Amino acid sequence: MNEFDKNPIESHFLYSFLNPKSIAIFGANNEYIGTMGAMMLRNIIFGGFPKDKIYPIHPKLENIQGLKAYKSILNLPYNPDLAHIILKPSIVPQVLEECGQKGIKRSIITSGGFREVGNENLYKQIIEIAKKYRIRFIGPNCLGIYNAWYRYPEYNACFNTMWIYETPERGNISIIAHSGTIASHIFWVCKEIGVKIGKSFSIGNEDDIDIVDCLNYLEDDPETSVIGLYIEEIKRGNEFIKLVKKISPKKPIVVIYAGGTKAATRSIMGHTGSIAGDDNVFEAVFKETGMISTFWIKDFMYYLRVFSRGILPKGDRLGILTDSGGCGAMMAKAAEKFGLKVPEFSDDLKSKLKDCVPDIANIDNPLDLTFSFDIHNKYIKIPKLMINSGEIDGIIIYAAWGVQEVLDVIKKSGGKIPEVFHQMDNAMMQKAYLKPIQRFIRKKSVPIFYICPQGYSNDWVREFIKNNIPIYDLWDMPVKCFSVLAKYSNYRKKILTRKL
Amino acid sequence: MNEFDKNPIESHFLYSFLNPKSIAIFGANNEYIGTMGAMMLRNIIFGGFPKDKIYPIHPKLENIQGLKAYKSILNLPYNPDLAHIILKPSIVPQVLEECGQKGIKRSIITSGGFREVGNENLYKQIIEIAKKYRIRFIGPNCLGIYNAWYRYPEYNACFNTMWIYETPERGNISIIAHSGTIASHIFWVCKEIGVKIGKSFSIGNEDDIDIVDCLNYLEDDPETSVIGLYIEEIKRGNEFIKLVKKISPKKPIVVIYAGGTKAATRSIMGHTGSIAGDDNVFEAVFKETGMISTFWIKDFMYYLRVFSRGILPKGDRLGILTDSGGCGAMMAKAAEKFGLKVPEFSDDLKSKLKDCVPDIANIDNPLDLTFSFDIHNKYIKIPKLMINSGEIDGIIIYAAWGVQEVLDVIKKSGGKIPEVFHQMDNAMMQKAYLKPIQRFIRKKSVPIFYICPQGYSNDWVREFIKNNIPIYDLWDMPVKCFSVLAKYSNYRKKILTRKL
Repeated sequence: MNEFDKNPIESHFLYSFLNPKSIAIFGANNEYIGTMGAMMLRNIIFGGFPKDKIYPIHPKLENIQGLKAYKSILNLPYNPDLAHIILKPSIVPQVLEECGQKGIKRSIITSGGFREVGNENLYKQIIEIAKKYRIRFIGPNCLGIYNAWYRYPEYNACFNTMWIYETPERGNISIIAHSGTIASHIFWVCKEIGVKIGKSFSIGNEDDIDIVDCLNYLEDDPETSVIGLYIEEIKRGNEFIKLVKKISPKKPIVVIYAGGTKAATRSIMGHTGSIAGDDNVFEAVFKETGMISTFWIKDFMYYLRVFSRGILPKGDRLGILTDSGGCGAMMAKAAEKFGLKVPEFSDDLKSKLKDCVPDIANIDNPLDLTFSFDIHNKYIKIPKLMINSGEIDGIIIYAAWGVQEVLDVIKKSGGKIPEVFHQMDNAMMQKAYLKPIQRFIRKKSVPIFYICPQGYSNDWVREFIKNNIPIYDLWDMPVKCFSVLAKYSNYRKKILTRKL
Repeated sequence: MNEFDKNPIESHFLYSFLNPKSIAIFGANNEYIGTMGAMMLRNIIFGGFPKDKIYPIHPKLENIQGLKAYKSILNLPYNPDLAHIILKPSIVPQVLEECGQKGIKRSIITSGGFREVGNENLYKQIIEIAKKYRIRFIGPNCLGIYNAWYRYPEYNACFNTMWIYETPERGNISIIAHSGTIASHIFWVCKEIGVKIGKSFSIGNEDDIDIVDCLNYLEDDPETSVIGLYIEEIKRGNEFIKLVKKISPKKPIVVIYAGGTKAATRSIMGHTGSIAGDDNVFEAVFKETGMISTFWIKDFMYYLRVFSRGILPKGDRLGILTDSGGCGAMMAKAAEKFGLKVPEFSDDLKSKLKDCVPDIANIDNPLDLTFSFDIHNKYIKIPKLMINSGEIDGIIIYAAWGVQEVLDVIKKSGGKIPEVFHQMDNAMMQKAYLKPIQRFIRKKSVPIFYICPQGYSNDWVREFIKNNIPIYDLWDMPVKCFSVLAKYSNYRKKILTRKL
């Protein structure tokens, strides 16, 4: 079955929001700087949306970004699937009214300036118009939709109504956010560290379509395996809890709740007009429903990334394999702080490991290889011994050096490279050391986390990211990531057992 | 006074460890791969150490990495300032004995395999030999020294005995670590995010020279303003406490203590042979002495970076200026979790701010500009209004967009750039928007933290890093950094008041 044959949930009303065949856009022009609408149109065009199905509406301009523009939606000889409105708030009701008259049933209202600044009147007007014409809408006060799985004209196009022009690699992570920033500004860093986003909803004030609607879509979306939520308020609390309870054992949900403190609540009030509630209530809901909660954006991104890999540990026992005593000790300490186990190895395992490590190394957990260039041991033999012992549930390996860079430095310094290393490029390393162990750990359900201090720009690190293998520049995050995997796995086990 | 005229503490016995005029190296060869000594020699050469003052000692080789090698230290017609030993542990005593006979008074013993693996006998031997010949030594089981302020032949050379070939920019941060990893493996990320290291000591088992000696040097070192410590054990507890108490009000100290949990203690035992103590005891000492403690390596690096800037806030009130309600709310929440204040602005300040923000924005703290391209307001006018009000002690600005990248995207998309932006390159932005406000905030002692989600590779972000202005890719770290600055500033104030 190739990707295109997967059966998406075409019957869900959000399907056409994510995959409109045609779009009218209000508020785009040729002034890319300082006009959000211009950048949004730019992104729709450059994502690969069929150009002849994009209809800019503008009272004066005849041509916008190479597209024919129409004076009014009422002049348009077509009836587009979606109307994207990026205008000052005062004229939104009129435009929405005309869209209704035209027969348009879907809208993204990017415009801000409604209930989040106390403008109740405008808010009521758009609600009424939408009701009258049965228009479903996202927003207002939002960036709309990013869909890297957009289906027209072909499956590798992207539908992006947001103004952020950077796009991460496509993957199985979907985001729903009350903030356009969390829904899109993170894309640069996503690209850098390999957080692969498939869909992102910026739902703003959610005066019509809300987080529950989007979750409902993602529940059965075959392109989504992991869900990230940024929450300022939950309007339909009961529906939300019922739904995430159902989803989270199938698809891990990582969540940020931004409310719960005085200044945050004030900020949220002015942001989406929501009234945020007590932190403890939300945290209790997250715990009860098996969601992974954090209030750090980097954690959020790394957690999504590690869940997207899909290898869940069976328990919470961590094995640490390291070149370096220092970071081994730090990881062990962090692990214990998170309630994970870093068990001492059995005598049996120790005796098996003895052959794999230099004389000066201690055989224990963390296992410190000191300075060793035996790549096979590090990538294959030791991890396999650890896993086959049944004594650990996950492994962190420090360091997965980018050998190519080291060789380049040596060459540039006038040094000679031993023959055995001549063939050792990243492709060979990938084939000989990564692929076999990756197959093995998937079978055994023991996640391995790699750390390469040469950083995310290193070629070897890019190989990991290309292949969705968790790689980190330093050693804080892998411990945190194993911790949330173990926690989630435990929750899932409990739920599944309860169901039997 | 130029940098070279600063008066370093030449009389301190560590001065010649950091600035040896000549060096003998044992254990280097031409096999760069798999031999730590070869990489260490490579780095000494490529750091700019005078080539005619590097003496490789090797029983067989006549030429090592382009340098004449000597069969034994006893054959060497010179008496080098320092002997760097990277040999298997069993022959270290003999070599050290010969160094003693030769009259060498300083050594870095990189070799591991002493008390950290229970080899008490070897350990005792080197202690005795060192005593007999009055040799001071760093190590064993260490990477030695990185000194970016090495003085010969000229002040911009670097003396690097570690095997890590990457070097960060030179700065006023110095590190002392029981782990070579913390002392050097972080250099790639340091370079990326602009943690500028001047000196780094990897002190290993510290069987002679210890953390107290190094701290003692750094206390008066004019090239060091901030100190980072990675600690597995403190041998001279009283001296340590007395010294850090004296140093920390002058030079902030950021510290990681790696011990205190079961697995970490086991790991440390096998790493440097130290017996680590209770976490609470260490934390109490850190608090009492005003040190900034963390157990995350990224925090450690960012804290060092922010202290190296040298602008301390007078209090703990944070002003947040943002394009984005979402990250504003998250920062406000994080700030309150850290016990910081995010005060509501006074009516007076609000009325002054009203002219600077779009109609649809709320005037409050966080101040959400929504989508605004008024660069002058964001960089200069609003921060000045906030600071002059006296209502805040630090500001976080989201987002400091790299305009150049945005313009490039527009150009590539076939868009036209308005004339006013034609001159707007990074140099102009730097001159017009960064320099003036940076002078102002230094005078007022109100730190500003900038966030640019386009990431560390962005050209505009590199401008900040070049100029030591705190810039972040996302919004977790600036809140943490303000929090430690405020905490430290408060400690310092108390100490200074007590002294009056």
